Amino acid sequence: MYTVKYLHDFTRDVFIKMGCCAVDAAKIADVFLAAELRGLPSHGMIRIKDYYQLWKANRINVNPNVRIVHETPSTAVIDGDGAVGMVAATRSMELAIEKAHKSGTGWVSTRNSNHYGIAGYYAMMALGHDMIGMSMTNANPLVAPTLSVSPMLGTNPIAVAIPAGKQPPFVADFATTPIARGKLAVAEKKGEKVPLGFVQDKEGTPSDDPAILKEGGSMLTLGGDYVHGSHKGFCLSAIVDIFSAVFSGANFGPFVPPSVAYLPVLDKKVGEGTGHFFGAMRIDAFQEASTFKATMDEWITTFRNAKPASGYDKVIIPGDPEREKEAKIRAQGIPIIPAIAKEMKEIADELGVGFDMQG
Amino acid sequence: MYTVKYLHDFTRDVFIKMGCCAVDAAKIADVFLAAELRGLPSHGMIRIKDYYQLWKANRINVNPNVRIVHETPSTAVIDGDGAVGMVAATRSMELAIEKAHKSGTGWVSTRNSNHYGIAGYYAMMALGHDMIGMSMTNANPLVAPTLSVSPMLGTNPIAVAIPAGKQPPFVADFATTPIARGKLAVAEKKGEKVPLGFVQDKEGTPSDDPAILKEGGSMLTLGGDYVHGSHKGFCLSAIVDIFSAVFSGANFGPFVPPSVAYLPVLDKKVGEGTGHFFGAMRIDAFQEASTFKATMDEWITTFRNAKPASGYDKVIIPGDPEREKEAKIRAQGIPIIPAIAKEMKEIADELGVGFDMQG
Repeated sequence: MYTVKYLHDFTRDVFIKMGCCAVDAAKIADVFLAAELRGLPSHGMIRIKDYYQLWKANRINVNPNVRIVHETPSTAVIDGDGAVGMVAATRSMELAIEKAHKSGTGWVSTRNSNHYGIAGYYAMMALGHDMIGMSMTNANPLVAPTLSVSPMLGTNPIAVAIPAGKQPPFVADFATTPIARGKLAVAEKKGEKVPLGFVQDKEGTPSDDPAILKEGGSMLTLGGDYVHGSHKGFCLSAIVDIFSAVFSGANFGPFVPPSVAYLPVLDKKVGEGTGHFFGAMRIDAFQEASTFKATMDEWITTFRNAKPASGYDKVIIPGDPEREKEAKIRAQGIPIIPAIAKEMKEIADELGVGFDMQG
Repeated sequence: MYTVKYLHDFTRDVFIKMGCCAVDAAKIADVFLAAELRGLPSHGMIRIKDYYQLWKANRINVNPNVRIVHETPSTAVIDGDGAVGMVAATRSMELAIEKAHKSGTGWVSTRNSNHYGIAGYYAMMALGHDMIGMSMTNANPLVAPTLSVSPMLGTNPIAVAIPAGKQPPFVADFATTPIARGKLAVAEKKGEKVPLGFVQDKEGTPSDDPAILKEGGSMLTLGGDYVHGSHKGFCLSAIVDIFSAVFSGANFGPFVPPSVAYLPVLDKKVGEGTGHFFGAMRIDAFQEASTFKATMDEWITTFRNAKPASGYDKVIIPGDPEREKEAKIRAQGIPIIPAIAKEMKEIADELGVGFDMQG
């Protein structure tokens, strides 16, 4: 088990050794640790090696000039200059919040970035400003549009964070697929089957085999199949892609550069890097903040008191499961499986950073 | 078969006889006919009787003072004063567009409104201004949160319309449930079963019987069940409800007043009427409009050329099916089933409007 501080310092030091300034490295570490704390280890320490390899392949810029290339009172486009995704994304969300302070809302589309970690982190940055925060990103193409077999979209997540008063905030953070890519990878490693509705084979026949993705198969959009509304999941994923990439001038859909170094970069580019989209809405641009928060408390309490289905003891309010995991993880520490600890040790040794494999 | 003009004139005249001004009545008729033309008759003529009965029950205000009650450069709250939904919604979307012209984006939350017809109509109002349009609304509670059996949410649709250049626009317009309420009603009338994943019984057990809604059952959110991500559909539906009602001060969730006169109005109110949320984003607040449209053309063409799944001949681009239906319906006319024509004739006779049951 590791403490949050230990892994935060380690992550920060790794990115400083790669050449990031201390401020950027600390921001990057914040997002990595937020993923571990919220019970999303698929976006935590397991990803350190991907970033390290992208850095070695000269595919990330550790000294980026992240800059505004276009703006209006409530909008902007940011060019991330090839930065680590967390650096471009944090600056973009800060700008959305600045604009919301002045104009009521702020909306920023970001190009020339890279994988930015968990979407929810950026949405939650707005909460302390009495704002609703939003964040979305496109990603490696693995998902087929409805009625198609071509993997053209990422798992394209959407996060929305809404402040409440006495209740904890409402925080939704979800991929626009039935299941995250990481969970399929775990099932594949264990040799387990998955329910129908997650993946299909290269002809478009539903499959229960997560390994099908390596044989020309593809992931399905939220809804799973056409009868159950997978075209609605496709709409959502497409909207994320368009807001993130067509607004900003990033690569869209099948042209998003892979966030892992072992996948080839396509010859064809339709824009610059990966794209994100951020939003901040000041609560009091609509409703007095105290009224809004009191009503959100009533909303949350009303839904928390919904009658559970037989066999369940309570209804899930978005954000509850992650908050429960965070409390547990903060108390118990963060477990790192030996294979990941070994990768971290190798990176530590190559860069000259300390890392204790025993935790 | 009826012509568009005939049914438009009829609808306008019905609302004029109820007391609406000619301008409002024409707007209402526009939205009714848009539903028929886009192949969504569940939101077309079949609804005339609901509005007529709400009017007779003094539950809609035909002379409303639709007014701005709060605003910033990019936001506003509108009070619909109990108007027919289309009247409050059209004014709200116009204001969002006005604000986007000045500030880059415009966002309007609307309270004290009623059922507003098809969500896509308002989103599409932005297209002619070189803007992306958005529209969402809360609705009669029929849908249970994930792991619950309490019907607390409407089918809460989301519509997003995005302009392109040579290609037709991208228009997504979907309920945040696997299937629309109207399609369940049709299956029930025919005595047909439905696939699992649409509805559950009063204990939360999946059911294939659409009539279960009358026996304490409820509709499920997009995703269908927890394994397939129905908590993501719940997140979407909840966000629609909060943006529409908590921002504006309308009734949220289980307290949304029914849009049909035969259902009772609850004693408990937590706000005023039904709520909607609208957005407009000027394309050139992010990207030069010609560049954006050319890239959207490339986006649409890329996805249209995705390889179809076995047994299908093409991929669906959001907006394509509705456009194809509209072309067919404009050429062939609008069919009205005898039971609906009879209702329309009765209303026509009561109000002193002409209506030819033969079409």
